[in-house]
Amino acid sequence: MVIRKISPNLALDHQVSLRRAAGEPIVHLGFGEARLPVFPGLVERLTAGAGRNSYGPVPGYPGVLRAVAGYFARRAMPTTEEQVIVAPGSKALLMALQLVVPGDVLLTEPCWVTYAPQALEAGKRVIGVPIPAECGGVPDPDALREAVRAARAEGANPKIVVLTAPDNPTGTTATPDLIRRICAVAEDEDLLLVSDEIYRDLVHDPGFEYLSPAEVAPSRTVVVTGLSKSLALGGWRIGAARFPADEAGLRMRADVASVASEIWSTLAGPMQEVAEYAFDEPAELVARRDADSRLHGALARAVQDIVVKSGALSRPPTGGFYVYPDFEPLRERLAHEGVVDGESLQEHLVSRYGVAVLAGVHFGDDPRALRFRAATSVLYGDTPELQRAAMEAADPTTVPHVAEALAAIELAFTFSKAAVR
Amino acid sequence: MVIRKISPNLALDHQVSLRRAAGEPIVHLGFGEARLPVFPGLVERLTAGAGRNSYGPVPGYPGVLRAVAGYFARRAMPTTEEQVIVAPGSKALLMALQLVVPGDVLLTEPCWVTYAPQALEAGKRVIGVPIPAECGGVPDPDALREAVRAARAEGANPKIVVLTAPDNPTGTTATPDLIRRICAVAEDEDLLLVSDEIYRDLVHDPGFEYLSPAEVAPSRTVVVTGLSKSLALGGWRIGAARFPADEAGLRMRADVASVASEIWSTLAGPMQEVAEYAFDEPAELVARRDADSRLHGALARAVQDIVVKSGALSRPPTGGFYVYPDFEPLRERLAHEGVVDGESLQEHLVSRYGVAVLAGVHFGDDPRALRFRAATSVLYGDTPELQRAAMEAADPTTVPHVAEALAAIELAFTFSKAAVR
Repeated sequence: MVIRKISPNLALDHQVSLRRAAGEPIVHLGFGEARLPVFPGLVERLTAGAGRNSYGPVPGYPGVLRAVAGYFARRAMPTTEEQVIVAPGSKALLMALQLVVPGDVLLTEPCWVTYAPQALEAGKRVIGVPIPAECGGVPDPDALREAVRAARAEGANPKIVVLTAPDNPTGTTATPDLIRRICAVAEDEDLLLVSDEIYRDLVHDPGFEYLSPAEVAPSRTVVVTGLSKSLALGGWRIGAARFPADEAGLRMRADVASVASEIWSTLAGPMQEVAEYAFDEPAELVARRDADSRLHGALARAVQDIVVKSGALSRPPTGGFYVYPDFEPLRERLAHEGVVDGESLQEHLVSRYGVAVLAGVHFGDDPRALRFRAATSVLYGDTPELQRAAMEAADPTTVPHVAEALAAIELAFTFSKAAVR
Repeated sequence: MVIRKISPNLALDHQVSLRRAAGEPIVHLGFGEARLPVFPGLVERLTAGAGRNSYGPVPGYPGVLRAVAGYFARRAMPTTEEQVIVAPGSKALLMALQLVVPGDVLLTEPCWVTYAPQALEAGKRVIGVPIPAECGGVPDPDALREAVRAARAEGANPKIVVLTAPDNPTGTTATPDLIRRICAVAEDEDLLLVSDEIYRDLVHDPGFEYLSPAEVAPSRTVVVTGLSKSLALGGWRIGAARFPADEAGLRMRADVASVASEIWSTLAGPMQEVAEYAFDEPAELVARRDADSRLHGALARAVQDIVVKSGALSRPPTGGFYVYPDFEPLRERLAHEGVVDGESLQEHLVSRYGVAVLAGVHFGDDPRALRFRAATSVLYGDTPELQRAAMEAADPTTVPHVAEALAAIELAFTFSKAAVR
């Protein structure tokens, strides 16, 4: 029997809304969404798709499957329509995968908050594996090999590894070398790789050499993606998955479609029209996405600079909109403030400095670690007007409301005595 | 390990599309959807909701929860916002209920194709119970009591009964007396009632006295509904559920929200704007829905007349858009055609007469029974233009394309020798 509780994100949101209602200004870095307005072309497609009120095919209409296949093909993953499926969010597809693929799950520590509850809901064991020094989102290859063997020795059946690149929560992206080494372990140990590439189009440096495990180990990699992050469409719930082209892959796709038909039927018709347009990647949409990536990079680097200046450690962010600092070097000083672990650090930052972050423990990290995730996209502002001002600025860090929030973050992350609440 | 296969609906759809591609005219009565155009006011709300691209609250925005609570309150079920939740389809909510409520499931024979696979996916046993003579969608009360005790004697733990009124596949609606008797059994045997009321607003006779088990046994009834049937929005995926107001009910709602947060997050923001408008039931929408109900009733009765004329048995349809004939009186004659059970009857009707129906066995009915479901809403036509012609006619059965399809059905259901294919 699975014990269900409110997710730590939602608990933090609730705390923030209570404080805001009490008149406190809060810089809410706890929420992992792109926080940008909808691109107008997407709204047009939503309206145009309104006539799709019939029950459509479970995996998606032919048009959207063609578009998704093209999206992957342009990323060095040749793909047919039979290999893909769309759904109301990549989360739904990740859950279906957990339900149809037997065996236990290896997750990085830290990782996205939803992977572990999904695995438990599917009756699996979760085996944590540490991340390498250079980035998160992938396990350290040697530690992965070790974890698989140790788990087997304890009677577990490790079969699935979830990878995230760029990563949530660390904001870093696995290098091709690391991906190749993970694929080699997967080959040796007969593991399935689930590659969550939902942040892929938000790599900050256009020259970054991105390698998907589906390029290296195509028969043992399922790729999931979605439009929530790259097009700021979290609330529209659009996800897609790509399965291996071989018989086992197509069988897995059929099983996922079967689960879909029992739980959510299919992606809403109007959203399929949106998805077809978006996965076709018209130039105007790509231009907007690229501009968004630059904005995400600029703000993530600005917060990273504050972190480094404060004396904390942090892997330089390379994709998405997260920074994941480690205040271990300041442990002694923080102990004087009663801050001794991730939870007390999170509480201290919000109650004393009005800066809301999510402690690493909520991502499966060591509870004692002085680590947390800061979602930097929240800095663009709460209204489409403020967000547009940030998007249009040559240097978004100088836009008044952004600069003000960065100043508040600097006071918080340097644990300044100047901040009085 | 659950064995997954393609659903019988989809298999039939595939067969129909192959025959159509080969140039055969097929009257496809196998597909259970309203098959009517979208009401324009709903499209306006979809577009207006496009700005809801943020991740919203898992159960739904306050506005839609208020609207759904009001919808139930107008139906003699006083409801607060804390008791309701919206989701991408009532199917998703039914699945979540199966996951969070322990115990085995009692289902009517026949019943909607998805209840049993969902129960099996959740690791439950399915216990079939026959329906009474007067209608489907509820078990015969005495048979229910008997089934519960027999199941317990065999080591099962029967805890959940799913009711459907009006019913799919029988097109009939439980009377208040039957609902009260089921509630009494639920009370005696400590069962939870899951009342699927997705066809409720499509009762044909506006004077029909509808009773929800939530009125009789409020603390042991969960109600699910959606807009797929009553507003012909199957492709838009909008569902809602109402939980008991007591502590156990609110706990169940929280558990369902927890499952939602792990699988689909929330209903898409623009769809929540649609749902808020629709569950508020503005006059113009109610007028359209009432007109649709009359249309559904007219065509269901027209097909029922053909069935009765053919010498078969069939409970008179009272809601939704289904007829569920029983050709048992013609068994001897049909045996000469090689028709000896539901599957061979289904095959005979499509291959000889070009009329596609879904055999009762696919709804959990006795495989030997000569029963099937005919979805009469498909008769309105495949295009919005044809559908509007049927909607606007004083007597829709006389509209040429409808009359032509009814003539084909008459040839099929009377097993006319005149029909040559």
